[in-house]
Amino acid sequence: MEQGIFITFEGVDGAGKSTQAQLLATRLQAEGVLTCLTREPGGTALAERIRHLLLYTGEVKLAPVTEILLYAASRAQHVDEVIRPALARGEVVICERYIDSSLAYQGFASGNNIEMIRQVNAYATGGLMPDLTFLLDLETREGWRRVQERGEAARTDRVEAKGFSFQEKVRQGFLRLAAGERERIQLLNCSGRTKDELHQRIWELLLDKFPSVLTRKEQEKGGWL
Amino acid sequence: MEQGIFITFEGVDGAGKSTQAQLLATRLQAEGVLTCLTREPGGTALAERIRHLLLYTGEVKLAPVTEILLYAASRAQHVDEVIRPALARGEVVICERYIDSSLAYQGFASGNNIEMIRQVNAYATGGLMPDLTFLLDLETREGWRRVQERGEAARTDRVEAKGFSFQEKVRQGFLRLAAGERERIQLLNCSGRTKDELHQRIWELLLDKFPSVLTRKEQEKGGWL
Repeated sequence: MEQGIFITFEGVDGAGKSTQAQLLATRLQAEGVLTCLTREPGGTALAERIRHLLLYTGEVKLAPVTEILLYAASRAQHVDEVIRPALARGEVVICERYIDSSLAYQGFASGNNIEMIRQVNAYATGGLMPDLTFLLDLETREGWRRVQERGEAARTDRVEAKGFSFQEKVRQGFLRLAAGERERIQLLNCSGRTKDELHQRIWELLLDKFPSVLTRKEQEKGGWL
Repeated sequence: MEQGIFITFEGVDGAGKSTQAQLLATRLQAEGVLTCLTREPGGTALAERIRHLLLYTGEVKLAPVTEILLYAASRAQHVDEVIRPALARGEVVICERYIDSSLAYQGFASGNNIEMIRQVNAYATGGLMPDLTFLLDLETREGWRRVQERGEAARTDRVEAKGFSFQEKVRQGFLRLAAGERERIQLLNCSGRTKDELHQRIWELLLDKFPSVLTRKEQEKGGWL
């Protein structure tokens, strides 16, 4: 059976990753394409427990390297338990956040060694990189506003605790990653676009890069291809 | 102030690491030397929580790389929160298990890539290696018997679950590490030696390698040195 396609959505909080990941998954499923929708941090029972460790540290101050290794451990389990098996079944895997988020948040924005984060994550994932990444970009102030409007208290607190300049560094980190990997990372400006317009653009980009994606269902059914 | 001395105890379950670490710490403290006694996995509140994750995975099968990264994350926090600060205060740090245990258990005995485990742990610890390691060695069958005699059900179950041949591979792994680093790792045969005989040998080896260790207390007190 054909190997699946691995797609990730990246970007700052409020950029619309969950919405677009869900819209893409729904459309692919409507076309009969086997699709696996997942997200980080989390995605497995163990990863959820690690995520809990990361969020609720109490009085403990996590060392930066501890945090990087915990995210990597969570990702290793997610890849092993969810992503690789789905790809092996030939599915389209859509994952919200992946290695680029570690590079943007723990690397560019927090000032930790980028190359070491790459190496640790290459080890964690056995070198598995997305076939295609949609980077949803918007002005930091706009993302900030959207998170507040949603009224998700926990997320608002987290974003605000880090401060505006941190969010701006995250955004600039993502933009640098995109500039360095134009082949893999599709940069999408989200300002002034409705979610449906954005979804349509993502759909077109996917079909451009993987024209055969919609034929997968036929192969699945043992059809005429 | 003088930098401290970092000492580790390694070996299979039942070799007597806890006993010897405790005896050494007590003697140093009796001599007035500032001493920090700690152990892995654990040693910090976060590390204890990670240890809990590792021990109680329920139905989840941890990927080998996840396990290696979780141990490394726990170690990173332990080094940052406990070991480096104690060394910076000039203390003698005595730690039960450290990187050599990861190499012996996850590496040699479990068949994972040794070099990658070294690299991940070098990253986790910022390259901090012990100044001196005591490897307590005994026949696998003897260690097995001692663990059973202790009647610690949890540990007995864990050791037995892995099986005899696994324990033998761990032991051989430790011996290979010792053969590769004779300068750092002191190999001690524990068979037929009482715990006091063994302690005396450890004490002599420590004074051989660090003749000035007992003068530390004088410096601490702002004394006449």
